[in-house]
Amino acid sequence: MSQMQETVGFIGLGNMGEPIAANLLGAGYGLRVYNRTASKAARLVARGAGAVAGPADVAERSGIVLTMLSDDRAVEEVCLADPSFVERLGPGGIHISLSTIAPATARRLAKQHEKYEVKYLAAPVFGRPEAAAAKRLWICVSGSREAKKRVERILAAISQAIYDFGEDPGGANVVKLCGNFMIASAIEAMGEVFALAEKNGLARSDVAEFLGNTLFPGPVLQGYGKQIVENRFEPAGFRLALALKDISLVLDTAASAPMPMPLASLLRDRALAAIAKGRGNLDWSALSLGAAEDAGLK
Amino acid sequence: MSQMQETVGFIGLGNMGEPIAANLLGAGYGLRVYNRTASKAARLVARGAGAVAGPADVAERSGIVLTMLSDDRAVEEVCLADPSFVERLGPGGIHISLSTIAPATARRLAKQHEKYEVKYLAAPVFGRPEAAAAKRLWICVSGSREAKKRVERILAAISQAIYDFGEDPGGANVVKLCGNFMIASAIEAMGEVFALAEKNGLARSDVAEFLGNTLFPGPVLQGYGKQIVENRFEPAGFRLALALKDISLVLDTAASAPMPMPLASLLRDRALAAIAKGRGNLDWSALSLGAAEDAGLK
Amino acid sequence: MSQMQETVGFIGLGNMGEPIAANLLGAGYGLRVYNRTASKAARLVARGAGAVAGPADVAERSGIVLTMLSDDRAVEEVCLADPSFVERLGPGGIHISLSTIAPATARRLAKQHEKYEVKYLAAPVFGRPEAAAAKRLWICVSGSREAKKRVERILAAISQAIYDFGEDPGGANVVKLCGNFMIASAIEAMGEVFALAEKNGLARSDVAEFLGNTLFPGPVLQGYGKQIVENRFEPAGFRLALALKDISLVLDTAASAPMPMPLASLLRDRALAAIAKGRGNLDWSALSLGAAEDAGLK
Amino acid sequence: MSQMQETVGFIGLGNMGEPIAANLLGAGYGLRVYNRTASKAARLVARGAGAVAGPADVAERSGIVLTMLSDDRAVEEVCLADPSFVERLGPGGIHISLSTIAPATARRLAKQHEKYEVKYLAAPVFGRPEAAAAKRLWICVSGSREAKKRVERILAAISQAIYDFGEDPGGANVVKLCGNFMIASAIEAMGEVFALAEKNGLARSDVAEFLGNTLFPGPVLQGYGKQIVENRFEPAGFRLALALKDISLVLDTAASAPMPMPLASLLRDRALAAIAKGRGNLDWSALSLGAAEDAGLK
Repeated sequence: MSQMQETVGFIGLGNMGEPIAANLLGAGYGLRVYNRTASKAARLVARGAGAVAGPADVAERSGIVLTMLSDDRAVEEVCLADPSFVERLGPGGIHISLSTIAPATARRLAKQHEKYEVKYLAAPVFGRPEAAAAKRLWICVSGSREAKKRVERILAAISQAIYDFGEDPGGANVVKLCGNFMIASAIEAMGEVFALAEKNGLARSDVAEFLGNTLFPGPVLQGYGKQIVENRFEPAGFRLALALKDISLVLDTAASAPMPMPLASLLRDRALAAIAKGRGNLDWSALSLGAAEDAGLK
Repeated sequence: MSQMQETVGFIGLGNMGEPIAANLLGAGYGLRVYNRTASKAARLVARGAGAVAGPADVAERSGIVLTMLSDDRAVEEVCLADPSFVERLGPGGIHISLSTIAPATARRLAKQHEKYEVKYLAAPVFGRPEAAAAKRLWICVSGSREAKKRVERILAAISQAIYDFGEDPGGANVVKLCGNFMIASAIEAMGEVFALAEKNGLARSDVAEFLGNTLFPGPVLQGYGKQIVENRFEPAGFRLALALKDISLVLDTAASAPMPMPLASLLRDRALAAIAKGRGNLDWSALSLGAAEDAGLK
Repeated sequence: MSQMQETVGFIGLGNMGEPIAANLLGAGYGLRVYNRTASKAARLVARGAGAVAGPADVAERSGIVLTMLSDDRAVEEVCLADPSFVERLGPGGIHISLSTIAPATARRLAKQHEKYEVKYLAAPVFGRPEAAAAKRLWICVSGSREAKKRVERILAAISQAIYDFGEDPGGANVVKLCGNFMIASAIEAMGEVFALAEKNGLARSDVAEFLGNTLFPGPVLQGYGKQIVENRFEPAGFRLALALKDISLVLDTAASAPMPMPLASLLRDRALAAIAKGRGNLDWSALSLGAAEDAGLK
Repeated sequence: MSQMQETVGFIGLGNMGEPIAANLLGAGYGLRVYNRTASKAARLVARGAGAVAGPADVAERSGIVLTMLSDDRAVEEVCLADPSFVERLGPGGIHISLSTIAPATARRLAKQHEKYEVKYLAAPVFGRPEAAAAKRLWICVSGSREAKKRVERILAAISQAIYDFGEDPGGANVVKLCGNFMIASAIEAMGEVFALAEKNGLARSDVAEFLGNTLFPGPVLQGYGKQIVENRFEPAGFRLALALKDISLVLDTAASAPMPMPLASLLRDRALAAIAKGRGNLDWSALSLGAAEDAGLK
């Protein structure tokens, strides 16, 4: 049985947010939840969460609110609403922002939070919905040192490991983008080698197994590699349209640096072609179809 | 003490060939060795190998010869010499070709071997010299089924695992190229993300550690990733000039398919720029310097 | 002596706007001008223009206003100011927007103008300041048919030719971006061939002359080609930083389509590397330095 | 009526070689012709040329031979045959090599010619078969100064202009490759902009006309641009498969420099995808289909 903990707010109950919120309940936290489509709160309410009418209502002075939303605009809208939960949190509250957004947005929001004496913590997560449900997420966190200390147990309750990237509120988001870029790069590389293997009469699965057992152990080759080998892109664990969003954030962040990332440019071009061909709702491992088609396969 | 085994031939005692040959001695095989620079045979001779005067002299009828040479031309020269060890091996001999060469070259040589009733086995290896010494190589093998069966114990004596890719003599070479391409892709991807991280005020080592502990466990991030983080490209485990050779083989093989590999094109362009700037003798992880320089770093 | 014409407003007296405005004066138009840095209006005032205190003051009901500003943000700010010249123009006025901006911005502004019953005409121009002074601009125009008819003489007074791209207010901006993309592509192509020629012992100028006399007559090879051959990138006719802005607009417009433009991605990467190396104030033909440096030249 | 000139040899009567040879006849030169498919000589023989049985027979000591062949291998075969026309030309003869081949091949052949005291002149041509027939070719020439002087009238008889690129026998071939690369770059750029225009509701033909009338006058936009706009890729003036050969020569020459040419890499990837999709026999302007397809058009 879990110990009784404080009550926190949670906004955004999509396929990532809901299992994360459920784990907080499971760890003994009280929850005030809000989701635009209210029906998504039902399962959590059945387990003891309180559903509130508006996003600002999840917050209480000096409290903690977690948000898990789809993109920069959604996070900005909810933070800048009038009244906003940020205002309600201050002074002394903490906003744990789990979404994958631009570092620049995180930095801007952190400044806005300061007006209300609220701490903004960037805490983007790695892992698919199953991983979220199993508390197997990896969390990258950055922002105020004291705030990080205060929320340590909350983050521990929803993840398998927490990595601290300093006090720049954009830092953790940079790392999140780095990770997604690395995965997308591996998808493209696999798309190219599996096409090369197939055109040379080899079984894709043999090559994938070899690479996964030797040079590239770990989830990327075993997970995405298997999907590519089997041409299995539905249901989408992470939609290709969202992958385009993230690759574009990578390139925007690089442009602000400023610096080029030619491999990211290649990935963005692949994603745009995929979307032009109607594949935006497939899993992002379908980026690999570009290489296959250019090889004349299928 | 090791059991006495048959005597085999070995041509090519460079920084990969020598430790492999030494492991054969250690496993009880007799060795007739040849190297263009004869002095490199000295250590093996001291341990019981016999050094011969010309490459053809390593072979005996129906015997086995291993070759570990630097490129397609070197393998072709030694196979097509007059007299050649291939002729001496026939009928009934086996040539185990450990070198990284073009699949097309392997296929052509296999045909030439047939004239003497000799089996050509492609058996390219993954691993650096230290791995060779420690019998930690991974071997990809393809070619005649019976020949593969006959050499099983020899390959086992020099490796940690053997992967069979069928009877096409070019098959194993395709997989070797796939693997090297995947590594080079990861080097480029790391070059780009570490530059992005650095320009955003993060420590490269923190990002590398995070990625290596989570999404990308395995030797590539831990080995090459560390070198890139530390800007340590000497001594070269695998020279950048040789990496260019392999990436060019990837692209040539893709062109024969025919199919494009845009990520391989990007890697080749990086390698050419690196060589134009005088970096051919650095380790191939120095491919990552392209991304750093384009970011204005250093 | 020129016939007396109506009086129009003009906002933005930079190195393109001023000579265009001067040509309107020369053609007999009265002018009310505004520029953020007021001193830039002096020469035009000396020739009879009236300088006004704020951007809204250049407009009169049912009149015509031309704007020539540096980017999307500047155009939006002046259109959306309170009060704005757009409001003052309505009902019945026309805004001729000469700036190079995103087609999406033009479409959005056209909608905003409709609220005041004002017509928004996109009329981006091709040509450098010298061409503007000499009435040698090419103008691409799109928007309301009647409005285009009404401003025909005004556009004729500042250009050598007018090309009509229909009624979509974004259309002419698409064409402007297409043209700038084509020029930037030619700059990259020249950068690569001149480097190849030089590394093969040929004189860059010989190759440029040959290409300009045969396959590629016209201003691009003769103008930018000459600058590249002579490594002469100052003073900037068009700053590299602005070229990056335009290439980014090309890519944004393509992303909205959606579609990839891999050559535009390459150009953007070149521009970002150039800016990371401190070349933002050079002429955009300095994009060619990327190819030269990667070749190890200089 | 034309003046009687000396008799020269001509090897290679394809769709470029035949009209060039016909122009030599028309200018009063005697001709000894050879073509692998003998029937192709019929029309020239009817006009007074002499057909010979083997390639070596076109040559006489100290004479002149022109060759117009499809690729490096064809030129090498005919030069290195035993007996070869080169041997028959020596001492004192001149070989005018009109084919588009690698600069490295030209340099190697020039050395081989020296053994027989024969001068090798690189003289690749720009222009399609119609231009060849109309003496509207542009010729780039390099090699021995005296030899160039001696063949001046011959080259003048088949071209509209001759450009001299010095004494390196590979020089003119470098320029030929530069030119073809520039054309292919323009094809890709047009493919991208026409797709962008179409997806924004503009008529491709309007954009092509605008660009051709302003920034890009000359044959490339007017010729290839029109084909792309009209999706008309047959009959092929220059087959896409040959374009791939030339782009590969560009990249090989760049690799020897050494230097990267990322735009050439992009073009090669486009060409490979086109060939993988069965378009090798279309005109090379069909390279533009890659951009259109990636945009989801058609």
